[in-house]
Amino acid sequence: MSEEHKKLSIISFSGDFDKAVAAFTLATGAAAVNWEVNLFFTFWGLNILKKKTGRAFIGKGILARIFNFLMGGRKNLPLSRLNFAGISPHLMTGMMKNRNVATLSELIDAAKALGINLIACEMAMHILGVKKEDLIDEVREVIGVPSFLEYSRNGQIIFIS
Amino acid sequence: MSEEHKKLSIISFSGDFDKAVAAFTLATGAAAVNWEVNLFFTFWGLNILKKKTGRAFIGKGILARIFNFLMGGRKNLPLSRLNFAGISPHLMTGMMKNRNVATLSELIDAAKALGINLIACEMAMHILGVKKEDLIDEVREVIGVPSFLEYSRNGQIIFIS
Amino acid sequence: MSEEHKKLSIISFSGDFDKAVAAFTLATGAAAVNWEVNLFFTFWGLNILKKKTGRAFIGKGILARIFNFLMGGRKNLPLSRLNFAGISPHLMTGMMKNRNVATLSELIDAAKALGINLIACEMAMHILGVKKEDLIDEVREVIGVPSFLEYSRNGQIIFIS
Repeated sequence: MSEEHKKLSIISFSGDFDKAVAAFTLATGAAAVNWEVNLFFTFWGLNILKKKTGRAFIGKGILARIFNFLMGGRKNLPLSRLNFAGISPHLMTGMMKNRNVATLSELIDAAKALGINLIACEMAMHILGVKKEDLIDEVREVIGVPSFLEYSRNGQIIFIS
Repeated sequence: MSEEHKKLSIISFSGDFDKAVAAFTLATGAAAVNWEVNLFFTFWGLNILKKKTGRAFIGKGILARIFNFLMGGRKNLPLSRLNFAGISPHLMTGMMKNRNVATLSELIDAAKALGINLIACEMAMHILGVKKEDLIDEVREVIGVPSFLEYSRNGQIIFIS
Repeated sequence: MSEEHKKLSIISFSGDFDKAVAAFTLATGAAAVNWEVNLFFTFWGLNILKKKTGRAFIGKGILARIFNFLMGGRKNLPLSRLNFAGISPHLMTGMMKNRNVATLSELIDAAKALGINLIACEMAMHILGVKKEDLIDEVREVIGVPSFLEYSRNGQIIFIS
């Protein structure tokens, strides 16, 4: 397998804390050993990329605004199990710090520093009324399925739901 | 990469509304740009393919019948989060219509029209007591893991859980 | 595609009963038709590999010990939906026995017998304070993302979340 095949495309569909950590751990780990990495955020995963890291009424349309408020941003990501009303992600972050493991915020910074291709799903943004300016500036493109598949050619695709 | 490598095999394990939309969006988007697509339904994913779109006591054995009733059909798929007792999938469908985005029903029709290979998992059907005649006619085959892997050779596999 | 490409690497992130069954069914089904299989357990998935199959205060640090107790071991895996306080996995196992389908325990034994490469995630173990001796002896290695990707080269990667 030639170098060009060392390519990983991750579809980050989930907005759960633990799965976001998994997505960024895989992405940064792969980029660190020179794999090309595409990190594509869709649906709940968009919450990780929102500029506003807390709850905010963003989006177009009353339903979208309520839905975005309820989902919140990066600071509101729940644990997929044993969430205990949102306390667990904070405890987990504490455990990660104690063990000298990169926290989610640090992983996101590492992804930016490593030049990982952060892309957002056009259709999910359209449904949820989220605009490009609602997302962090590092999001390079807003694309659809055909473009994502083109980016992922010859590589491996992982879906984190 | 030759044309024959443009192949996507999706394992649709989830019976959640949002993940079913994701599976069919990926499948139809890939088929639209001439990828070969295998859409393999297992466990909760079988609910999407049931002929009876509402709750029904299908299956063999009392436990299987109760379980199938509780899971329901395509109209009972819950949102994986913020489901609000089943109201959210309807609100979400409304938002999709307002934005002129294909709804789940339209995506399923598109998948049929595009000739996407809809296949069902033999073992999951056996465990849940679901028979081929309980599923929509477009399901071409009921197969096991080895056949699925054979279909997926040289392609990319995605698992939506 | 040459024989060397018949390789499947499964990231078993989930600690849900139904998804564990899916991971081992895919793994053993692939190994049975001579695919090379890597089964990589991370985060909740580590519960499947714990020596203590029930609840136990394992791990280093008070938070880790509580968290491991709450997650439990192989006998405490919940169904991802319709869990009914842990009754459903037992009912499901009963249904599997009635249908002569391999149960989770039998699938794990088959995986061992087939020589499937069981590996555990270094970072997840570190965060959760779980040590190699807490896991079943069949776990060959504790590795990080770069080693996992190296194992998965030329193969197909599946993420079960």
